[in-house]
Amino acid sequence: MTHTENHLKSSEFITDMVIGMSDGLTVPFALAAGLSGAVSSNTIVITAGIAEIVAGCIAMGLGGYLAGKTEQEHYQSELKREYDEVDNLYEREIQEVKDIFAEYGIDDTGQTMIASQLAKDKTKWVNFMMKYELGLEEPNPNRARNSALTIGLAYLVGGLLPLLAYFFTSTPHQGLFLSAMITTTCLFVFGYLKSKVTGQPKLKGAFKVTAIGLIAAAAAYFVAVGFDRIFH
Amino acid sequence: MTHTENHLKSSEFITDMVIGMSDGLTVPFALAAGLSGAVSSNTIVITAGIAEIVAGCIAMGLGGYLAGKTEQEHYQSELKREYDEVDNLYEREIQEVKDIFAEYGIDDTGQTMIASQLAKDKTKWVNFMMKYELGLEEPNPNRARNSALTIGLAYLVGGLLPLLAYFFTSTPHQGLFLSAMITTTCLFVFGYLKSKVTGQPKLKGAFKVTAIGLIAAAAAYFVAVGFDRIFH
Repeated sequence: MTHTENHLKSSEFITDMVIGMSDGLTVPFALAAGLSGAVSSNTIVITAGIAEIVAGCIAMGLGGYLAGKTEQEHYQSELKREYDEVDNLYEREIQEVKDIFAEYGIDDTGQTMIASQLAKDKTKWVNFMMKYELGLEEPNPNRARNSALTIGLAYLVGGLLPLLAYFFTSTPHQGLFLSAMITTTCLFVFGYLKSKVTGQPKLKGAFKVTAIGLIAAAAAYFVAVGFDRIFH
Repeated sequence: MTHTENHLKSSEFITDMVIGMSDGLTVPFALAAGLSGAVSSNTIVITAGIAEIVAGCIAMGLGGYLAGKTEQEHYQSELKREYDEVDNLYEREIQEVKDIFAEYGIDDTGQTMIASQLAKDKTKWVNFMMKYELGLEEPNPNRARNSALTIGLAYLVGGLLPLLAYFFTSTPHQGLFLSAMITTTCLFVFGYLKSKVTGQPKLKGAFKVTAIGLIAAAAAYFVAVGFDRIFH
């Protein structure tokens, strides 16, 4: 039991880190790449990159926090409703249990047997309905806060890496060149590790993640250059 | 059956639209707000905003597409594994079915009855294990493509609304003022509709969504202004 919970927590942590890091490595990098084609000062690229990272951190972190809170409220309100139904619509709930099993070819005797045994323990019955009728599992009460912090911090770290290059170079084009090298390496390593922890093919995953980042950056670059040519 | 599928499809569509639109209304708006405090030309704000929207569309859309494809591959490989287990580890799979029901207080007779009836139809048995042991449902084969398009387009529309203001004004400060008015209105309406379709309290949801957008924008603005003061 303890083992399972630890496993669950660490995989939620990894999921959140992956969400934050993959967007963090992609979007600020692509934004900086786009601006590098259109402006002449590294300060503007860095300012825009930092504004984006702050905005992205808060939108993803706070958005994740509120989504987690909503999920908890939803679970609690469905739980209350299910208890009410078990109390007040006993026959209908028994029929719902029977319907679930009828779908899998269990005969009427089997359905009745399960339904009547389930009905003996109200808590277990309600938990069964929550999981198997509604597909809902009780959310971890600290999940919303942890999730917000993990996603926000991962986005911050992922987003700052591509920007570093613009601190150490003197023109946006030099910055872009160094940033693309740093970020391509990071995307590849990150894609590899991500695929490893999620049990996907590792090299394929590394190429996929890298491709998304580079395509987004190339598109942002060409659109920004095109836009800049039209308006200057 | 047809009704359920329509319902499912439309709710996936709405989920994707909500994901794309809420990030689209928040991040490009906050980026533009941040830059408005640090640069003196609307063209730079618009260029950065457009580069961000292109990057965000591709990262979210392509990211969503590949995530959907991975989900399908994962389902298919687990399905194959479950068929193998039912063929080659019959006793263990029977025991797994019994364990699921033991947890809910079903006695040994009931467990054996369900397991032996399930085992009569291999397809139904495997589907049962996929859903109730692994918690996996078969993904809609068009989901990945549809999801990518919906999220990407919603991000594009959501992101262009705040930028419009900078086309029709002559300084970033005027642009920010108009953009904040347009975006606050859009966030509020969007938060209200989002809460309505997800069955959450409508006004509370509208305030939450608006607050995230405005907090992100305010933070991006103050960080960009602060950064600009240090480096100029």
